[in-house]
Amino acid sequence: MSKEINVTIWNEFRHEKSNETVKKLYPQGMHQAIADGISAEDLNIRLAALDDPEHGLTEDVVNSTDVLLWWGHCSHAEVKDEIVKRVHKRILEGMGLIVLHSGHFSKIFKAVLGTSCSLKWREVGEKERLWNIEPSHPISQGIGDYFELPHTEMYGERFDIPQDGKVIFISWFEGGEVFRSGVAFERGHGKIFYFCPGHETYPIYYDKNVLKVIGNAVRWARPLIYQAHTAPNAQPLEIINTPNPHTISAGIAQDVNGKAK
Amino acid sequence: MSKEINVTIWNEFRHEKSNETVKKLYPQGMHQAIADGISAEDLNIRLAALDDPEHGLTEDVVNSTDVLLWWGHCSHAEVKDEIVKRVHKRILEGMGLIVLHSGHFSKIFKAVLGTSCSLKWREVGEKERLWNIEPSHPISQGIGDYFELPHTEMYGERFDIPQDGKVIFISWFEGGEVFRSGVAFERGHGKIFYFCPGHETYPIYYDKNVLKVIGNAVRWARPLIYQAHTAPNAQPLEIINTPNPHTISAGIAQDVNGKAK
Amino acid sequence: MSKEINVTIWNEFRHEKSNETVKKLYPQGMHQAIADGISAEDLNIRLAALDDPEHGLTEDVVNSTDVLLWWGHCSHAEVKDEIVKRVHKRILEGMGLIVLHSGHFSKIFKAVLGTSCSLKWREVGEKERLWNIEPSHPISQGIGDYFELPHTEMYGERFDIPQDGKVIFISWFEGGEVFRSGVAFERGHGKIFYFCPGHETYPIYYDKNVLKVIGNAVRWARPLIYQAHTAPNAQPLEIINTPNPHTISAGIAQDVNGKAK
Amino acid sequence: MSKEINVTIWNEFRHEKSNETVKKLYPQGMHQAIADGISAEDLNIRLAALDDPEHGLTEDVVNSTDVLLWWGHCSHAEVKDEIVKRVHKRILEGMGLIVLHSGHFSKIFKAVLGTSCSLKWREVGEKERLWNIEPSHPISQGIGDYFELPHTEMYGERFDIPQDGKVIFISWFEGGEVFRSGVAFERGHGKIFYFCPGHETYPIYYDKNVLKVIGNAVRWARPLIYQAHTAPNAQPLEIINTPNPHTISAGIAQDVNGKAK
Repeated sequence: MSKEINVTIWNEFRHEKSNETVKKLYPQGMHQAIADGISAEDLNIRLAALDDPEHGLTEDVVNSTDVLLWWGHCSHAEVKDEIVKRVHKRILEGMGLIVLHSGHFSKIFKAVLGTSCSLKWREVGEKERLWNIEPSHPISQGIGDYFELPHTEMYGERFDIPQDGKVIFISWFEGGEVFRSGVAFERGHGKIFYFCPGHETYPIYYDKNVLKVIGNAVRWARPLIYQAHTAPNAQPLEIINTPNPHTISAGIAQDVNGKAK
Repeated sequence: MSKEINVTIWNEFRHEKSNETVKKLYPQGMHQAIADGISAEDLNIRLAALDDPEHGLTEDVVNSTDVLLWWGHCSHAEVKDEIVKRVHKRILEGMGLIVLHSGHFSKIFKAVLGTSCSLKWREVGEKERLWNIEPSHPISQGIGDYFELPHTEMYGERFDIPQDGKVIFISWFEGGEVFRSGVAFERGHGKIFYFCPGHETYPIYYDKNVLKVIGNAVRWARPLIYQAHTAPNAQPLEIINTPNPHTISAGIAQDVNGKAK
Repeated sequence: MSKEINVTIWNEFRHEKSNETVKKLYPQGMHQAIADGISAEDLNIRLAALDDPEHGLTEDVVNSTDVLLWWGHCSHAEVKDEIVKRVHKRILEGMGLIVLHSGHFSKIFKAVLGTSCSLKWREVGEKERLWNIEPSHPISQGIGDYFELPHTEMYGERFDIPQDGKVIFISWFEGGEVFRSGVAFERGHGKIFYFCPGHETYPIYYDKNVLKVIGNAVRWARPLIYQAHTAPNAQPLEIINTPNPHTISAGIAQDVNGKAK
Repeated sequence: MSKEINVTIWNEFRHEKSNETVKKLYPQGMHQAIADGISAEDLNIRLAALDDPEHGLTEDVVNSTDVLLWWGHCSHAEVKDEIVKRVHKRILEGMGLIVLHSGHFSKIFKAVLGTSCSLKWREVGEKERLWNIEPSHPISQGIGDYFELPHTEMYGERFDIPQDGKVIFISWFEGGEVFRSGVAFERGHGKIFYFCPGHETYPIYYDKNVLKVIGNAVRWARPLIYQAHTAPNAQPLEIINTPNPHTISAGIAQDVNGKAK
């Protein structure tokens, strides 16, 4: 396995162009801020945005990405279904996925989890405290018992995700809610990490703890192997003594998309 | 909660019309055979098929179905995406789903699980032994340590499903493979059960153990509640002392489909 | 299955005798208050306490209990290991277990989970808000989005439990912590529910939401079957063609306790 | 983190001394054969046996072991409870545990899982095929779709383990059974892997696939951190406005063993 991890940071990159507060905070976009923040010798980072051709997620880019980060908010519906399928297939084959903040409603996150990913929210800049539930996990290394963010957007339970996610962080919000704010999943051969902080009008992607978690998650999500999913007609490995009750098979071979061959 | 469970049994219902072996076995369709086999006072069963208008899954039918059974094989691609979305939404709101045999490649099963659901297969009519992994589970009541099917289609690992499924049955096949043949999931407020046996050229849906499991699964999958998923802007429950760092919010309310309101 | 559930409520029953505040709150013991609070036609409730002969958990009592509730605090070490083994065995065979509050450090809870069950704590009577994470679950029926307790003892993460527990409630504490306050497990054929509220100096076991949850949990934890665990020498179900490489077996049969027979 | 992993291989080491077949196969003990088979530059391996002082598991040995392997069969009852507690505590603090074959009935394995770990068995030297359920997992690297062992002892379902284990291998046995033969758990900060093959009268610990899996499991089970479990009285992180309803606290501080301080 090569030492470098190919990381693609995908960002809607709309707010940064249209909203003064966000533009001042992230002049080159949140994705650039994250890239700067997690920059390291073992990471080979490139950026992609909604308004790039094919949303910056061409076959070449997707097939050469080991871990994909995703930040989206108001334009989830504009992401083309064909691109979502391409990314989804690659995740099941091994690519890691890290979904940030409002990306909970992205097509790709809902596609890999199969749930609505809904939640409660409130945007008044209240305090959030993220408790470290699994200090022995790679994702939470260097964090300690908890860390705080002075101003965030509240995300509150019930978070409609499957309960097989390994909970890494649970958040306490000043306004009274709680939230499973760091959750790790596995789908196919791919690893997925959802991380809640990241509202665009606060300097969250400059926070050293947030960047530490994201950097840890990238190394954790990196695949050991890539393997396509097929549905082969398998030869028996044992002698089958049961006589076949009929000779004309109604079975029609199909490919993995359910289309008759 | 009313005593009756509204069950809709969906079947592709193509093989039964085009293949002599299948037609003889299931003259009125596999769905009718299953309906007859699990018929009981507490079940209010109706049938639906691919070639019905809206595949028999109109808004009325879906909204009044408590548990949906699904058998499909070669025509998964013909099921309209809009109908799949309707069914998926209702499952997340509470409707139960029981997916049978080749339904593993159905759009709805892949949508709720997020994985490819691929597997190995072989159609030579070999013996299958289903081992009961959870004898205290509602789905396996009345089954015993294991049961056998003399002639089946082999489905073999690796079955590309998420590992959060509760394994109810694991199968041994004469040709040398194993398979997690009965697996229970929860997504949103809905319960999902995948059950492997059911190749159309064998009389599997007349087998009393298979029918027992399906009947048990219907009662297990019946929802306690129905609840839609929303993403409300929540009022704080506590006094928030942190001053909001800015007054112009960039947050744009969105609905659960990720569309800006 | 008979309609009545045999419930045994086990209580350390020491504080109620030695501490004035507790004695006034619970003159006949917390176990009596819970029994009164969940009393119903389908529940056949008896009480047991640490200072009873065999801690009130004779073979007869244990073998005729369907669901056991457990409240203990300062005298966990006084519970005899032999009684713990008896109870543990019965849980694995099907008996349900509901562990309350400081029972997290009981020998039986640590035995069924295998972890230390440690946590943070603070006793200043702060507010707790329990968020309902699984509104479709039997245990949370009748609860709503959340409920509050005005005065509780804070229990805070990290709660050293296995992550396979299904999280039913997550609590928010006024002092800044969060806690997985309602968690459901399955071990062997038994079901286990841990429920956090219950510090003896507050009237928590008179709270209608707390009693509702406990009552729901009793019905959920009731076993469908009882089945002992054995390690039988099984006859093959198929003809084995592989010749046995040796005739003298070194294998010595043993019983389920690992003792050579 | 130092590059070397301290591995202790614990073996009952009785059969090798009393049974001719086993003595010929493993003249220096199964633990020595495993040590030779997984020997590598990053592994610092030592051996321990039941009949050593303190079973070879002194405080010093346990506190300097990163991953403990365990093979036991007929003398589980002779392992002193005090040593089991020492090992259990260290696992919860981070030490990895790999349990082999008949070690399923060891005190330590049953203690960390909380279940009976019972199963079916048959000793006639039949063929076993282990299917690789998770080819992207560190433990199954270098294995392929499956591997076979020509002569093994059958272990068959129902295996009484908690269902939170991640299933890495499922076995097919010639005599008709199936078994979850490679399962990974996490308890406290420790990682645990159970691996089924290993009956003492067959040369299983010379098999290259078996040794590959064990070697992979050692690297997987190595802890990132060690952390003791405490139950501290925590200072609030927020101002608590709720007035404490009483001033005399009945709460008595206790240590993690449930003893009043």
